Amino acid sequence: MLEKIAIFGVGLIGGSFALALKQAGAVRHVVGVGRTPAVLERALQLGIVDQATTSVAQAVDGADLILIATPVAQTGAILAAIAPLLQAQTVVTDAGSTKSDVVVAARIALGDRIGQFVPGHPIAGREANGPDAALADLYVGKKVVLTPLPENPAASISRVASAWQQCGAIVHRLSAQQHDRIFAAVSHLPHLLAYALVDQVDRTPDADLLFQYAASGFRDFTRIAGSSPEMWRDIALANRSALLSEIDAYAAQVARLKGLLMEADGAGLQALFTNAQRARHAWLSTIEAAERQTRTGGD
Amino acid sequence: MLEKIAIFGVGLIGGSFALALKQAGAVRHVVGVGRTPAVLERALQLGIVDQATTSVAQAVDGADLILIATPVAQTGAILAAIAPLLQAQTVVTDAGSTKSDVVVAARIALGDRIGQFVPGHPIAGREANGPDAALADLYVGKKVVLTPLPENPAASISRVASAWQQCGAIVHRLSAQQHDRIFAAVSHLPHLLAYALVDQVDRTPDADLLFQYAASGFRDFTRIAGSSPEMWRDIALANRSALLSEIDAYAAQVARLKGLLMEADGAGLQALFTNAQRARHAWLSTIEAAERQTRTGGD
Repeated sequence: MLEKIAIFGVGLIGGSFALALKQAGAVRHVVGVGRTPAVLERALQLGIVDQATTSVAQAVDGADLILIATPVAQTGAILAAIAPLLQAQTVVTDAGSTKSDVVVAARIALGDRIGQFVPGHPIAGREANGPDAALADLYVGKKVVLTPLPENPAASISRVASAWQQCGAIVHRLSAQQHDRIFAAVSHLPHLLAYALVDQVDRTPDADLLFQYAASGFRDFTRIAGSSPEMWRDIALANRSALLSEIDAYAAQVARLKGLLMEADGAGLQALFTNAQRARHAWLSTIEAAERQTRTGGD
Repeated sequence: MLEKIAIFGVGLIGGSFALALKQAGAVRHVVGVGRTPAVLERALQLGIVDQATTSVAQAVDGADLILIATPVAQTGAILAAIAPLLQAQTVVTDAGSTKSDVVVAARIALGDRIGQFVPGHPIAGREANGPDAALADLYVGKKVVLTPLPENPAASISRVASAWQQCGAIVHRLSAQQHDRIFAAVSHLPHLLAYALVDQVDRTPDADLLFQYAASGFRDFTRIAGSSPEMWRDIALANRSALLSEIDAYAAQVARLKGLLMEADGAGLQALFTNAQRARHAWLSTIEAAERQTRTGGD
């Protein structure tokens, strides 16, 4: 049982964490902290937090666990604000989509207290945002990746892992570097590519005519181009180096496709398409098997 | 009322056309023609066709309308087989996803009877294939693009348009060149890009680890990479020239993204993402308004 948790950013991610822990009876007192009184007030009304404050000192005093669930660009400033107030029993974690940059910011902000910070990334979301979007079951069956530091005591990692498990999540561990490379490839790159395609069609002189014939394939391919431009700007900048490697690899793939088309190499095109179709099918089968196992509680 | 239609390829596309016309009471007799007796037999069993034959002569004799709904690479050979048997009252159309190449093949196969061929492309589909996948309502509210030739008499174009309208489709007209450029941008390019991304992830040495963290964004972005490799090889080759232009434009977009990231140009990234998000939102709103209008029968 956690006596007190403090949550910076009581929106979808932070709010759902609070609701899930409350529903599991895993926390006695939840404090929400932020800069916007109306948002805090709403979180209080919805029963997401027991107390709302704009005072960092009030929020962190006596906390077992602090979750930073604000936009990732604010993490460094929040850690710097927490640092002089951080008590020895408190463990801090975050929910940022990138990890290497957060670790750098945390080392600067926390100095020799870095061992109290266990970086994390819950892989969950929905289109909506803010306290009203928070759901007690948002994390059920979802992955949460922790990227522990060499300085983290095992007990601190366990406290964070256990809280996420109480939310119904499946906790994974990666290094921050592994995490950022993996998400650059399977999440950040596709977001940039989807934005790039819609922007390309939109910049065509007869864009209206083109959009008129865009159908369900285009809709699904570009769904993630409906995501928040500010959030994805921050993620792209935060994960620049891994993302640049993936962009280079993708530019080479586009050049390869161009070459196959120039040479009218039907066998080459078919081989690439067939490999992709097979790999995607195998991936979906694995995911579906894992989901069945989660639902039936098997191991 | 059409007295007799002949359908080459009684799968999803051809079978659904037959079922829809029958349900509308718009045809007296449907002949299915193909090379695989088991498929024809199945179409007969399902009531898609009234008669099944492997004889082109038998199929086209006395037909008002012939629909070629086979894989697009076969269109030229089928037109060549039909040509010596083509009667003056018959109109021929097709369902191919590319049009300029079909027009070239049709001119070669039909010579001075080219006026009897009205090229078409129904924008409809589903994951399943074959006669069992055919649905009487597949085309309801869907677009069918006709790309008429200067040689087509108005009455022939009308016959094809009217048949599709009886299926519930909305008939549009474009030139073959316009059609191919539009679909290269909004359909063919995204298919190639989706295949390219899955192939890239799969070729990573630790692909299993990457796939483990791929989530719903990746799934939607790559859904079209589950499509038939043979079909998309044929489409890519058939629409090579328009597709190469789009690939060049996309390679420039990828280079632009790379430049923005190299320079850590947050404002530039945000501007591109914001434009894409806005354009996609406007597109979806327009589509949804059009769908509401179709459902309520407004104009």
